[in-house]
Amino acid sequence: MAQVRNKQVFLKNYVTGFPKESDMEIVEDSITLKVPEGSGDVVLLKNLYLSCDPFMRILMTEDTPLYVGLVYSPGSPLLGFGVSKVLESGHQNYKKGDLVWGITKWEEYSLVPSAQINFKIEHTDVPLSYYTGILGMPGITAYGGFFELGCPKKGERVFVSAASGAVGQLVGQFAKLTDCYVVGSAGTQEKVDILKNKLGFDEAFNYKEESDLDAALKRHFPEGIDIYFENVGGKTLDAVLLNMRSNGRIPACGMISQYNLTQQEGVTNLAHIIYKEIRMEGFVVFKFYHLYPKFLEFVLPHIREGKIAYVEDIVEGLESGPEALIGLFSGQNLGKKIVAIARE
Amino acid sequence: MAQVRNKQVFLKNYVTGFPKESDMEIVEDSITLKVPEGSGDVVLLKNLYLSCDPFMRILMTEDTPLYVGLVYSPGSPLLGFGVSKVLESGHQNYKKGDLVWGITKWEEYSLVPSAQINFKIEHTDVPLSYYTGILGMPGITAYGGFFELGCPKKGERVFVSAASGAVGQLVGQFAKLTDCYVVGSAGTQEKVDILKNKLGFDEAFNYKEESDLDAALKRHFPEGIDIYFENVGGKTLDAVLLNMRSNGRIPACGMISQYNLTQQEGVTNLAHIIYKEIRMEGFVVFKFYHLYPKFLEFVLPHIREGKIAYVEDIVEGLESGPEALIGLFSGQNLGKKIVAIARE
Repeated sequence: MAQVRNKQVFLKNYVTGFPKESDMEIVEDSITLKVPEGSGDVVLLKNLYLSCDPFMRILMTEDTPLYVGLVYSPGSPLLGFGVSKVLESGHQNYKKGDLVWGITKWEEYSLVPSAQINFKIEHTDVPLSYYTGILGMPGITAYGGFFELGCPKKGERVFVSAASGAVGQLVGQFAKLTDCYVVGSAGTQEKVDILKNKLGFDEAFNYKEESDLDAALKRHFPEGIDIYFENVGGKTLDAVLLNMRSNGRIPACGMISQYNLTQQEGVTNLAHIIYKEIRMEGFVVFKFYHLYPKFLEFVLPHIREGKIAYVEDIVEGLESGPEALIGLFSGQNLGKKIVAIARE
Repeated sequence: MAQVRNKQVFLKNYVTGFPKESDMEIVEDSITLKVPEGSGDVVLLKNLYLSCDPFMRILMTEDTPLYVGLVYSPGSPLLGFGVSKVLESGHQNYKKGDLVWGITKWEEYSLVPSAQINFKIEHTDVPLSYYTGILGMPGITAYGGFFELGCPKKGERVFVSAASGAVGQLVGQFAKLTDCYVVGSAGTQEKVDILKNKLGFDEAFNYKEESDLDAALKRHFPEGIDIYFENVGGKTLDAVLLNMRSNGRIPACGMISQYNLTQQEGVTNLAHIIYKEIRMEGFVVFKFYHLYPKFLEFVLPHIREGKIAYVEDIVEGLESGPEALIGLFSGQNLGKKIVAIARE
C-alpha cells in the first residue's frame, strides 16, 4: 500500500532552562494510511491544528514529575492537544470523517490509542481551531478552574495573570459574565489594550513595567482580591498573597514563570494563606472533563451571540511549530497559539 | 469598695526576631472586683489557666496582618485564650461561678466584653486545663482542620509537623482513630519517643537531626503523603510538596518556623500543587466553632475511656508566663504549654 510523507516535530534532547528551536527537530518520515492489522483500539488521524501549551515545557525536562499522564522522549515526536480528522478507526466510537480533539502527536498523521481522543467534535458552525482553545482544553480549564474552584460570587474582585493567554482571556470574560470586577496582567502594551478594549477586563497592566507588583495590585485592588487565577507563579504569586482578602480562593492552573528556571523562585508570603484563610488548589484539566457537555451548553451560545471573544494566534505549517512553542515562554504569542498543519 | 492586687503581663514593645522575656513586663496593678456601673455586656473574670499559643507571636509584630481579630499594644496586657471563672456578669448568658473559656487578658482578673467568652464549660469531670488544649482552641483546630479540610480516608498517609504540640498531638491521634498511617516530626528525641510510645504515631522523627528533609520524608512515606497537617512552614513545607500524592490535602494551621524571621524563607516547590492537584487551605479556628458541640460529643468519650491522651506542660504563676510563651519558639515546651495562675 502506498505511503505518504509524514513530517514530524521531534524532541531532540531534554531541555534545561529556556527551550530553543534547536531542542526540537523537523523530521520527514512516511506512513501507510491504514490502521495496521491487529492493532486493536487504534485510530488513524490526520492532524489539522496543533495546540501550543505551556505544560509542554514541563514535559521537556528530564525526570519531570508525571504530568497530565504524558511523557516526552528524545527522538520521538512531541505530544500535545490537537484537532484531527479520523481517517480510519479501530474503535467503534469513531468512524472515518469524524472530527475529534484530544492528545495527538506533532506530525501530519498519527496512529493513536482511541483513549487519547478526548471528545468528538459535534459543532462545526464555529472555527475548528477553537477546539484547541475556547472549546478545548483551555476552555474547560478556565471553566472548571474559575467556576468550580474559584466559586465566584457577583461583585467579587478577580485577578488573572497571563490574562491574554489561552486560558486567562476566558477566565476574565467568565468573571465579567458573573458580574465580577476583573483585572488582568500581561507582558506587553498590546496585550493590555486587548484585555481592556476587546476582552472586557475592567483594568489591565503590563507587569514588566511595574517595579513593585505589590503596589500595582494595591492600586487596582484597594480592597483586595477575592479570586486569583494563578497562571504564572513566582513573584506574582508572592505579591498576590499580600493582597488577598479573607476567604480568598486561588485556583492554581499553571506557573509559567517557573518552568524554565533551574532554580525556582521562593515564595515568601505563604503565611497569608493562614492569616486570610485562603484556599489554593492546583488542578489538571481532566478533573473537569465530566463537565464538558455542560460547558459547551454554557459557552456556545455566548460565542454565537458574540458575547465571548477569543483571540487566536495561528501560524502555518509544522515547520513553524518549534518557534511557536518556545515563543510562549517569552510572551511572543498574542492569545491562543496554534499551529495549523491542514485545514481539512 | 476594696481593691485587690491584679498582676499582669504587659507587652513592653513590639518584637522583631525571636521574642525575649524582656519584651514583656510583669506589672502589679489593682482592680475593684465589680462590674462598673453602666458598662453593659461586660463580665468580670478570675483567670485560672492561660494558654501559650504560637499565634501570639504574630500579634507581637508591629503592623502585623489582623489575625484572629486581636491586636496587641505595648503597655497593655497580652491577650490570649484562657479558662476563667465568672465573678460577676453584666450579660444574661453568664452568672457568678460559671466556668468559661475564650479570649482573656494575661492578668489575674479581667473585665472582658461578653463576646470574648467563647464557650461555657459544662463538663468538669476532666481537668479544667484541658479547656486551653484538647477541649479548647487547639482541640477544635485539630478537629476542624483534620476532618473538615483534610478529609481523611481510612488507610491514607498523614504527616504532622510540630507533632507533639498542642494541636499536632491531637491530629496524630485523630488520624489513628481514622485508621490512617501517621508520622510526626518534632525537635527532640524525647518528643519523638512520646509521639511513638504515648501518642500512638506509627513513626516519628527529629527534624533537627535530618540533614535532608526530603530524604527523611521519602524514608517514612515511600508512597507519598495524602494529608500534610501544616504547623511549621518553610523548609518542611518545601520538602513535603515534593512528597505529596495526587489529590493531597494540606490544611494550613500555622507556620511557626517563620514567625520570628524578619525575612521569610522562600518556598520553591509550589508548582507541585498543580502537578499533584493539591488543595492547600489556610484556616483560623473560628471557622469551626459551630462544630464545637459535635466535637465534644466525639472527643469526651475518647478522653474518658483513655483512648486519647493529651500531654500538658503546666507552669505555675503569671511570673512564669513570659518564659513559657517564648519557650514555644525554641521548642522548650513538651506538649500544650499552660500558665496556671489559680486553681479555682
